[in-house]
Amino acid sequence: MNKIVTISREFGSGGREMGRRLAEELSCVYYDQEIISEIARRTKLAEDYVQQIIESKPAFSFPINIGVTFQISSNELGKQKAIVFQEQCNLLKELAEKSDCVIVGRCADYILSDYNPYRIFVYANMESKTERCRRKGKQDREMSEKELKRRILEVDKRRAEYYGFITGQSWGRKHNYDLCVNTTNISIKEVTPYISQMLMGTIWNNERYN
Amino acid sequence: MNKIVTISREFGSGGREMGRRLAEELSCVYYDQEIISEIARRTKLAEDYVQQIIESKPAFSFPINIGVTFQISSNELGKQKAIVFQEQCNLLKELAEKSDCVIVGRCADYILSDYNPYRIFVYANMESKTERCRRKGKQDREMSEKELKRRILEVDKRRAEYYGFITGQSWGRKHNYDLCVNTTNISIKEVTPYISQMLMGTIWNNERYN
Repeated sequence: MNKIVTISREFGSGGREMGRRLAEELSCVYYDQEIISEIARRTKLAEDYVQQIIESKPAFSFPINIGVTFQISSNELGKQKAIVFQEQCNLLKELAEKSDCVIVGRCADYILSDYNPYRIFVYANMESKTERCRRKGKQDREMSEKELKRRILEVDKRRAEYYGFITGQSWGRKHNYDLCVNTTNISIKEVTPYISQMLMGTIWNNERYN
Repeated sequence: MNKIVTISREFGSGGREMGRRLAEELSCVYYDQEIISEIARRTKLAEDYVQQIIESKPAFSFPINIGVTFQISSNELGKQKAIVFQEQCNLLKELAEKSDCVIVGRCADYILSDYNPYRIFVYANMESKTERCRRKGKQDREMSEKELKRRILEVDKRRAEYYGFITGQSWGRKHNYDLCVNTTNISIKEVTPYISQMLMGTIWNNERYN
């Protein structure tokens, strides 16, 4: 069985960076935005729209773009959510079958549970998250502290809602993960090689993957 | 400033073993039951009684043993809880001033927050916890599965109550910890050296302790 690491993360906690660095350290494939692009290709839906569905924005705010922009009914939306979710499951399983990999987000910890992934949750305090957002993104740098905090809370609220909708479980509940890493005041670059060594020296050598 | 690691743990998760091994790896002092013994000595209360206060059993079940056994009023109990807590704070701070150390339980993560401890929470699923309890303790081996599960839940419920009473916060809430380790299906002996290396290579080398 291939070795799978899934990363779930609070917005601004540096989970994506940890995933990318972990894949480098473990010499395996890293999947993140590619998953959205591939689902969009397969479902013939616009990438932004797939992203919005996965981030579970409320129905009334959905414009769908396949050449033209129009409002869709909640019935149609439900159908499209189901289609996107089905493709998401198929794709994640294909990727898990293909090779060792690190997957960020997309409920992969839950969808791939049969593959016994090592499930990491990355989080941080609000101050650390706003600081990291400002460092990484131009859009975030231009927001006021209050706006940025609201944005962080909103993104995580949507992630929690989508995760809850798909899995029936609480997003971020530590019992659903193997390791929860608080990135407040730590350097992702510095800490990731140690997590990688821990994985290689323990989990990836035991009967889980034999 | 001395380097402090605090370990909070679910009953049966192997947190105590991790604490002991971590102290060995880090070549520093390990405190656990010694804290109860020293509080008992200082307050002239029986060790079992101090343990019960710290585990926060309901008032009416408290026999106090200082030569004789008698029931105490809830007022008296409140007073003794306060005395024990005061000694607990004094002692933990003395230990933190003395040398680098690993401290298991005793709300040390909260009480020593000024010392910027590295706070670990250790947890596992119920099956793993009952299995570990049976392996470690004669008393637990003799219990039925149902009794053992009830015991695990009760101990953790008391820990959560005491922690909440002292700190006003939720015991086990991941944002109160730097690292949360799920010990389900992993060997504490195997994983601890990696956590120790991570601490030595990152946290203990950064400005937190300079």
